[in-house]
Amino acid sequence: MLVVMRAQATDEQVRAVCQKIEALGYRAHAMPGAQRTAIGITGNSGEVEAGSLEEMPGVHEVIRVSKPYKLVSRDTKPDTTIIRFPNSAVTVGGQDLAIIAGPCGIESRDQAFNTAERVATAGAQFFRGGAYKPRTSPYSFQGLGEEGLKIMAEIRDQFGLLIVTEAVDYESLDLVDQYADVIQIGARNMQNFSLLKRAGRARKAVLLKRGLSATLEEFLMAAEYIMSEGNYNVILCERGVRTFADHTRNTLDLSIVPAVQRLSHLPIIVDPSHGTGKRNKVTPLSRAAIAVGADGLMVEVHHDPDAALSDGMQSLFPDQFDALMTQVRLIAAVLDRDIPVPTKRRAELASSAG
Amino acid sequence: MLVVMRAQATDEQVRAVCQKIEALGYRAHAMPGAQRTAIGITGNSGEVEAGSLEEMPGVHEVIRVSKPYKLVSRDTKPDTTIIRFPNSAVTVGGQDLAIIAGPCGIESRDQAFNTAERVATAGAQFFRGGAYKPRTSPYSFQGLGEEGLKIMAEIRDQFGLLIVTEAVDYESLDLVDQYADVIQIGARNMQNFSLLKRAGRARKAVLLKRGLSATLEEFLMAAEYIMSEGNYNVILCERGVRTFADHTRNTLDLSIVPAVQRLSHLPIIVDPSHGTGKRNKVTPLSRAAIAVGADGLMVEVHHDPDAALSDGMQSLFPDQFDALMTQVRLIAAVLDRDIPVPTKRRAELASSAG
Amino acid sequence: MLVVMRAQATDEQVRAVCQKIEALGYRAHAMPGAQRTAIGITGNSGEVEAGSLEEMPGVHEVIRVSKPYKLVSRDTKPDTTIIRFPNSAVTVGGQDLAIIAGPCGIESRDQAFNTAERVATAGAQFFRGGAYKPRTSPYSFQGLGEEGLKIMAEIRDQFGLLIVTEAVDYESLDLVDQYADVIQIGARNMQNFSLLKRAGRARKAVLLKRGLSATLEEFLMAAEYIMSEGNYNVILCERGVRTFADHTRNTLDLSIVPAVQRLSHLPIIVDPSHGTGKRNKVTPLSRAAIAVGADGLMVEVHHDPDAALSDGMQSLFPDQFDALMTQVRLIAAVLDRDIPVPTKRRAELASSAG
Amino acid sequence: MLVVMRAQATDEQVRAVCQKIEALGYRAHAMPGAQRTAIGITGNSGEVEAGSLEEMPGVHEVIRVSKPYKLVSRDTKPDTTIIRFPNSAVTVGGQDLAIIAGPCGIESRDQAFNTAERVATAGAQFFRGGAYKPRTSPYSFQGLGEEGLKIMAEIRDQFGLLIVTEAVDYESLDLVDQYADVIQIGARNMQNFSLLKRAGRARKAVLLKRGLSATLEEFLMAAEYIMSEGNYNVILCERGVRTFADHTRNTLDLSIVPAVQRLSHLPIIVDPSHGTGKRNKVTPLSRAAIAVGADGLMVEVHHDPDAALSDGMQSLFPDQFDALMTQVRLIAAVLDRDIPVPTKRRAELASSAG
Repeated sequence: MLVVMRAQATDEQVRAVCQKIEALGYRAHAMPGAQRTAIGITGNSGEVEAGSLEEMPGVHEVIRVSKPYKLVSRDTKPDTTIIRFPNSAVTVGGQDLAIIAGPCGIESRDQAFNTAERVATAGAQFFRGGAYKPRTSPYSFQGLGEEGLKIMAEIRDQFGLLIVTEAVDYESLDLVDQYADVIQIGARNMQNFSLLKRAGRARKAVLLKRGLSATLEEFLMAAEYIMSEGNYNVILCERGVRTFADHTRNTLDLSIVPAVQRLSHLPIIVDPSHGTGKRNKVTPLSRAAIAVGADGLMVEVHHDPDAALSDGMQSLFPDQFDALMTQVRLIAAVLDRDIPVPTKRRAELASSAG
Repeated sequence: MLVVMRAQATDEQVRAVCQKIEALGYRAHAMPGAQRTAIGITGNSGEVEAGSLEEMPGVHEVIRVSKPYKLVSRDTKPDTTIIRFPNSAVTVGGQDLAIIAGPCGIESRDQAFNTAERVATAGAQFFRGGAYKPRTSPYSFQGLGEEGLKIMAEIRDQFGLLIVTEAVDYESLDLVDQYADVIQIGARNMQNFSLLKRAGRARKAVLLKRGLSATLEEFLMAAEYIMSEGNYNVILCERGVRTFADHTRNTLDLSIVPAVQRLSHLPIIVDPSHGTGKRNKVTPLSRAAIAVGADGLMVEVHHDPDAALSDGMQSLFPDQFDALMTQVRLIAAVLDRDIPVPTKRRAELASSAG
Repeated sequence: MLVVMRAQATDEQVRAVCQKIEALGYRAHAMPGAQRTAIGITGNSGEVEAGSLEEMPGVHEVIRVSKPYKLVSRDTKPDTTIIRFPNSAVTVGGQDLAIIAGPCGIESRDQAFNTAERVATAGAQFFRGGAYKPRTSPYSFQGLGEEGLKIMAEIRDQFGLLIVTEAVDYESLDLVDQYADVIQIGARNMQNFSLLKRAGRARKAVLLKRGLSATLEEFLMAAEYIMSEGNYNVILCERGVRTFADHTRNTLDLSIVPAVQRLSHLPIIVDPSHGTGKRNKVTPLSRAAIAVGADGLMVEVHHDPDAALSDGMQSLFPDQFDALMTQVRLIAAVLDRDIPVPTKRRAELASSAG
Repeated sequence: MLVVMRAQATDEQVRAVCQKIEALGYRAHAMPGAQRTAIGITGNSGEVEAGSLEEMPGVHEVIRVSKPYKLVSRDTKPDTTIIRFPNSAVTVGGQDLAIIAGPCGIESRDQAFNTAERVATAGAQFFRGGAYKPRTSPYSFQGLGEEGLKIMAEIRDQFGLLIVTEAVDYESLDLVDQYADVIQIGARNMQNFSLLKRAGRARKAVLLKRGLSATLEEFLMAAEYIMSEGNYNVILCERGVRTFADHTRNTLDLSIVPAVQRLSHLPIIVDPSHGTGKRNKVTPLSRAAIAVGADGLMVEVHHDPDAALSDGMQSLFPDQFDALMTQVRLIAAVLDRDIPVPTKRRAELASSAG
């Protein structure tokens, strides 16, 4: 915390602010400058509650300095976290890029299997699909619930794909924790602290999507909530933020990838489907996401987008996803990252299912 | 839904789009223009899932037209909703302005009573105070929980103030529904649809705060979630949105007040404390909120802001709240609205408590 | 400027940063804290060019502290500036509120006179009207140029109204300086520094509109550009900023009014017409602007908005402007501000013109 | 233009709106829907001035449909524009990527030559450097003016680099048009329509940077201003937009690259230096910009960033630029684009200069 005094602040006013700081139990460091005096505050273990410092005579501004994150910070753990999964060679945050693909929502066994076969063949290691859909309207399709989770569990057995799916409350989180491999916390729940803490007590890894207007600090603090409950397997996901720009549904903020990597050891992937909301932007932004250094992608694919019950306009056709994979594989190579070809077992499973 | 064709789209392409629309079960209305053809879509009961219309040859853009809200809409209920409370003359949405005041968080019985006495005397009809605090950091003070609710229930008995407090999950919502008069859903939970539905099944009125980056439509749809479960007593609350502007913590968007009043019958109040995040901006923006036509205010007041465990920098001193009330009372009169003087009982209770 | 070190920064790294700062010609003040060390920089007359400080080993972040404005600052001139006009009792920034009204663009002598008569009668002291219109499209009506200025000069003579009109480049600025009383610099030119400097050498007062995405600091620095050339008669104008919100054309940020008044001695008015872009929001936001403490209003009025060549959707009908004036007059009184009734001469002129 | 009626609008109200539209000289197309009627408007050559349509009884909303750009549109010119330069094989918009590099501002002959030698050797075809600097503060370094332009003209002769530099008003534009190869219009002047028109009458190509809060449509319309005066050699440049995100100075919006390419035939490049404002983000975002499909890069490089008079914190060291070039060359290859190796002449010139 730093208190900046006005140019004409008197020595008396500076002293009064220092005394106030000391009275609050901190230490004050007055630094007279050419134009004005600034007063540093140290000795605080957490965040200083500045109270009425800003209102004191002669005070111009109060600036916060210390960053509040601990467990998410590279200061705490310098090495990048690599997330592993039981009985699987798949990782997130290591040499291999994580590719998560599938429909927005699970609509039926057929739809899910058709899409899963295609994304497995193309090289995705994870299958995504919503069983619980947070929809803007209460009258829109809200997902199949546990039935959807069961379909995805079958897909794991059939195709060797790990399952990523969203939880929206305690009940669904318990079920997702049971059926899936990665629990997704959606953008709208990024600051649903109650749900974050519950996810922090789950056994499975958590994919945390950035909120629509979350700063980098808030994003990392949301991960801190999960980690503070003991679950250290957190994957961050940039999915676009809300701005004035109207040529895409959200503005994909790829600069957060290197920014997160500088401050935190957690892996970060990118969702260009929600990040743009337009099918024709998904492939270019997927290339860009890998080029910027992301640890993976989360892409919506539907075997028949026109018939999709949600997000049809941003879902790729399977053939488009094949082409996307070809392109990002080449870009990954430039960055010395790999997208592993499907394991024999996955390939066989996929082909025998076909 | 409207499909706008490119200038050079061929008749064949226009026909193909019309056929596609009909195949999706809707009716297509081609409107040839001087520059380009637009095709209207009707016959949809809900939102059209545009699928791949946007990708068809010759298509320039797809524009959504119908608004999805029903129960919140003035189209459905032309008269403004007036919310009433059992055994109380207090209303929200009628002639009287609703003034909600109190500390950010309930920290102790003393703190709560000291503040309550002052705000009751000044003319507030509602006492606010957080028992469950959604904090950016897991290491910050998270509220007293049920103990805080009990303190507030005592305050109702003592001062005749109605109680407004936030619920952050099912458990806290059940308790808030039991102890308080108004269940607050915070900005970070505005699209926690699971919580909204639960609030829709509660007995008490709901105060719904606008999300940090919520559009007017999303805000109204969140209210629609609550109403769709049967709870029609919803009070909307503007509390600032996130923008690039950095002279306040959020940007208070007062224009949403007349915008909501045009589209919806629900009452809307303004929270200038979170809306600005700066004590010295609360009074001017409170005046502006009443002048723009809001149905009330929600203001943070603390009997000793310097010692506050949260939001000290934006809490008013009780004397400042007194001055605020004097000013907004005069402005209310200009708009033919009232801020009722404290009832005798409230005045007596407050003075006997003092 | 403040350099915040990482938690694990070594003493050596701290020393290296201090040495670097000294090598750049400044003084370094190391403040060891519980978690990390911060290093204050003083001795700089202007902005420190931090160069590669942020890249040095052990550095976490570099934070700028000093504010660069001088002439606009209350630190320099504690008393609020009151702008006066030759041979006129009208002021901006004093007890009286300044009401500027008129059409978006001057379209014809008839249109201008019809509107001027109405706004003069209603109590406006200033007539606004664009002779040079910055339009998004090169194919839209661009204004009448000098012919428009001449019409406005006649209006001054006829109705005793002071004239406010926009300059968009040197040529138009020279003409506006000659014909008008206040030179308007539009939002799109707020950082057209070349034009600002020219306005700083003009004889007339300058009305500076806030840019669509200007921070408070940038807004004040734009005024500093004008003042640094010797023209101290600057009126600031909030006119809405660009955000994600789509229920108004811009988001009117009324909190900047008290924020400016805290930092600067310059008067600030509000333009609710551009600030909302919707006729039905102009009156409520005008009330709010006066209630928040603005020094005046700038409102678009057109005697026949349906036929307006620009901004018809946000222009008030004259009758609506009459009603607006009645309302804001009452609110002004609450804040001990006046909207003077039209002088006898203005009333006579208006009636004789009618 | 589309007028959406309220759900309860009467037939009479629908008829009245249609009559009004016809009275304005357009044609009305009423489309009765299940919930409400929408009325299409055709027959307008330009933008409809909706006047008070939105205020008519029964009207819910007015939606604009037609896009106003003509010359910039792919509807007008389907093939991507390739910009060529006299006596040079360099192109923008073709197979080769355009790499523009150099210091923020020209500070001295030595500084400019040192940097130019390095960027030429690394493979840039264009040298950038500001002679006229738009600075937030009037007290900051404002550039060397014509002296800077002369230094850059020497650099062209010496190193075979084409020169890109900013013009901020008519005078500087005339000089830039004389000395440079590409006239840059900066972000703050993107809607300085007077300057755009003047650039449209210049002989040299124009590099138009996106405004800090410009929508795609406004960006294209600014280019339309230039083209409408006869200069068809316009290069667009994304340089980050202003959002709430604070981990970078601006938010680089890479999705605008495919969005522009879909609507317009003009080439578009990316400036990751201003787009992030942080040296350590420039290389990752440069990779992403090429991966998304941009036609080139504009990068700030300084031979001694610590001593830079402006933008030192975002300027690359020459060694960093070498590494950047190596990386983007590999990514360009994935997209079948080239970054040509320096021509023999350029290599010789550079080495003889060294």
